[in-house]
Amino acid sequence: MDYHIRSAEPRDSPHIMAMIRELAEYEKITHFIKLTEEVLHRDGFGDNPWFRCLVAERPENEPSETGPPFAGYALFANSYSSWTGRTLHLEDIYVSPQFRGRGLGKKLMKKVAQEGLKSGCSQIHLSVLKWNNPAIHLYKSLGAESLTEDPGYQVMSFNLEALKNMAKEEQLSCTL
Amino acid sequence: MDYHIRSAEPRDSPHIMAMIRELAEYEKITHFIKLTEEVLHRDGFGDNPWFRCLVAERPENEPSETGPPFAGYALFANSYSSWTGRTLHLEDIYVSPQFRGRGLGKKLMKKVAQEGLKSGCSQIHLSVLKWNNPAIHLYKSLGAESLTEDPGYQVMSFNLEALKNMAKEEQLSCTL
Repeated sequence: MDYHIRSAEPRDSPHIMAMIRELAEYEKITHFIKLTEEVLHRDGFGDNPWFRCLVAERPENEPSETGPPFAGYALFANSYSSWTGRTLHLEDIYVSPQFRGRGLGKKLMKKVAQEGLKSGCSQIHLSVLKWNNPAIHLYKSLGAESLTEDPGYQVMSFNLEALKNMAKEEQLSCTL
Repeated sequence: MDYHIRSAEPRDSPHIMAMIRELAEYEKITHFIKLTEEVLHRDGFGDNPWFRCLVAERPENEPSETGPPFAGYALFANSYSSWTGRTLHLEDIYVSPQFRGRGLGKKLMKKVAQEGLKSGCSQIHLSVLKWNNPAIHLYKSLGAESLTEDPGYQVMSFNLEALKNMAKEEQLSCTL
């Protein structure tokens, strides 16, 4: 079984968005999804893209009747580490249920690694849900280390409301 | 006490690198630092910068005799979330020991939030060491939530050796 993996194109946006929703359902975090197809399209395929995406086309003998024409995708962004410099932040790697267990996740990871090396990166960084053992197993089998285990990092996030509150307070104190 | 916070300039590279080393000493992870001043300079101040940096100048009445001319810095990069779109990844926020406890960390965070909003971001994302209570307290007081607590994310990383192994295996399997 072979998959054609290629860089996403603007016309792929609705299908990528559909797979992002599928992944969120698997991760049980659909309530966090604020992203829309329009915003994804603007941010990924404009003059200064904010992310890059690889899509794995379905094998010709397994076309989709109603869903996306892809078996999976990987979405990642340039990032930076003050330890090691240029870094790829791997946001999502996703394989549709019917294609799991056939090595596509590994193949996508390998393509992401190639993209990272081409860009001069020396690290791929990602967050994974603690209960998602298939994903953790894949990453560890390919050489990933848990920075939550050692040296002990946790992930934190400020949402839009927190950003606006921080920015507003600063403006006020500047005028006082 | 007021600090002038401004965007870093190319001439600041050696001082930023010095503060990165100070932060690594505080975090007890100096053995992870592979970054050099030359690479930092190339990646931050070339045609396609991989990160942005704010520096807080020391107050005029507290000049440095031997160390960097800064009281602290914040280093961050554009990133992307498939939940919320444009994201700032906050890599480092650092305040030199003699300036701690005077609100500079909060002021730097506020400036980072303003930069994020200007770029259309709706999230700031960061990793913090579990034992670094002053930093965790600062982030929580400004509205951050721990994604390690809920929904339960851990941080993982592939280093350069793992990237090269992944990329190499893929090339081999393509020729078989």
